[in-house]
Amino acid sequence: MKVLLSNDDSYLSPGLYLLYESVKDLCDTLMISTQYPKSATGREITFDKPLRLYKTKYLGYEVFVTDGTPIDAIHLAIEVLGFKPDLVLSGVNVGENLSLQHIFYSGTVGVAIEAALMGIPAIAVSADVYEFSDFYNENFRELIKRLVRMLTINTMKFGFPKGVDVLSINIPRTEHFRNCYRVVRAARIRWRARYRIDRDVRGNICYWLQGEPEVSEVDTDVYSFEREGCVTISPITVDLNSSPEMLRYVERLVSGEIS
Amino acid sequence: MKVLLSNDDSYLSPGLYLLYESVKDLCDTLMISTQYPKSATGREITFDKPLRLYKTKYLGYEVFVTDGTPIDAIHLAIEVLGFKPDLVLSGVNVGENLSLQHIFYSGTVGVAIEAALMGIPAIAVSADVYEFSDFYNENFRELIKRLVRMLTINTMKFGFPKGVDVLSINIPRTEHFRNCYRVVRAARIRWRARYRIDRDVRGNICYWLQGEPEVSEVDTDVYSFEREGCVTISPITVDLNSSPEMLRYVERLVSGEIS
Repeated sequence: MKVLLSNDDSYLSPGLYLLYESVKDLCDTLMISTQYPKSATGREITFDKPLRLYKTKYLGYEVFVTDGTPIDAIHLAIEVLGFKPDLVLSGVNVGENLSLQHIFYSGTVGVAIEAALMGIPAIAVSADVYEFSDFYNENFRELIKRLVRMLTINTMKFGFPKGVDVLSINIPRTEHFRNCYRVVRAARIRWRARYRIDRDVRGNICYWLQGEPEVSEVDTDVYSFEREGCVTISPITVDLNSSPEMLRYVERLVSGEIS
Repeated sequence: MKVLLSNDDSYLSPGLYLLYESVKDLCDTLMISTQYPKSATGREITFDKPLRLYKTKYLGYEVFVTDGTPIDAIHLAIEVLGFKPDLVLSGVNVGENLSLQHIFYSGTVGVAIEAALMGIPAIAVSADVYEFSDFYNENFRELIKRLVRMLTINTMKFGFPKGVDVLSINIPRTEHFRNCYRVVRAARIRWRARYRIDRDVRGNICYWLQGEPEVSEVDTDVYSFEREGCVTISPITVDLNSSPEMLRYVERLVSGEIS
């Protein structure tokens, strides 16, 4: 069993090594990441310039580093380093990725989606922490290790069922966690965009994004995470295609046959 | 009927104005775009700095411009300019976006997905052209205008059916087009990453991405576009959630009950 470990917060994030510590004795592993943090650049791939790739040590661990994006890192590991994973673990991300809205933005989940498109099961792990030093909280470390270990063992044993390509996991801060784990669908959106009109130091008008929380439905990741203090596990598919019936409907729609 | 027009190639792209010309007499419109091209930054949103927004004229048309990303542009149009669209048109993009792989990367489709998450039907239009000047080919313009006009009229009349949130349209170059239109699912991946090992001018090893085409199945966008020379229309959903049955299966999987 080969597990590829990566993230979008760069090789400097202790979150990556926490994943490694969770599974190191279970499988063959390889860690690869980016030189610099690449959050929210989601799913960029580099095709117009050459990429660098080197091996280094950080926090005592061997890790490969590229000057490309998180998506580049995955492809470099598979194609250049020849590491063909049975499972990809992405994270632990600084910041949770709740709702489809954030799943679509997220670099952490983006890595998992890219693996899934190639047919590799993938687990993205995101946590409600603010900075790298938060990863050194011992209770938090234990929670992550137990969870990631359990998920990895069960995925190794049973695989993912058809229609599940990625598990997107969100972990509350230790002080909010109420010791519950929920498998729930991702809410559609988490925030509505609102803007505060401001003036910059030169007196020009500018706009600051201010998210306004969307009312969250019960049995969604947002609700379980925010209201119930649970770890959420959202199984997602990368198959965005509408159903075959809908394809036929759209066929008639575009030809104007429907009336 | 209000239609918001946007893209990810900046307000300097004639592709945006081509969309406008296709629908200007059918509905109220507003055009908004970015100062600079933002291809392949996919779905970035700006939350850590203030955004600028101004109105200008380009190629004879009134257009709003932001220094943010394509996703920011959509939110600014709705929230700051108060334009609540019934339909979002995104494109015409320089470069086609075939397969789920590219749909996940694409800024053009990203704009449409963002609209869809807010419940607004959206159509993303991408074309196999190489540069802005290609948009001035008269046959090509006529093809786009007829198609976008027809899709807009039919969407205005019938709406999208449940389970369809975005139509992703891909248009071949004029010389490859064989006058066929296909409603087809998006292939999973279009390219496998391969890397050519090279040395830079300082003698250091570097890696160039070289895509290797994946064998394309019949009845996919890649096949219809590349082999049959058709315009492809792929209806997609933004609901990445696995089915409720799969959620229950994963519940048992994570608890280790399955054996």
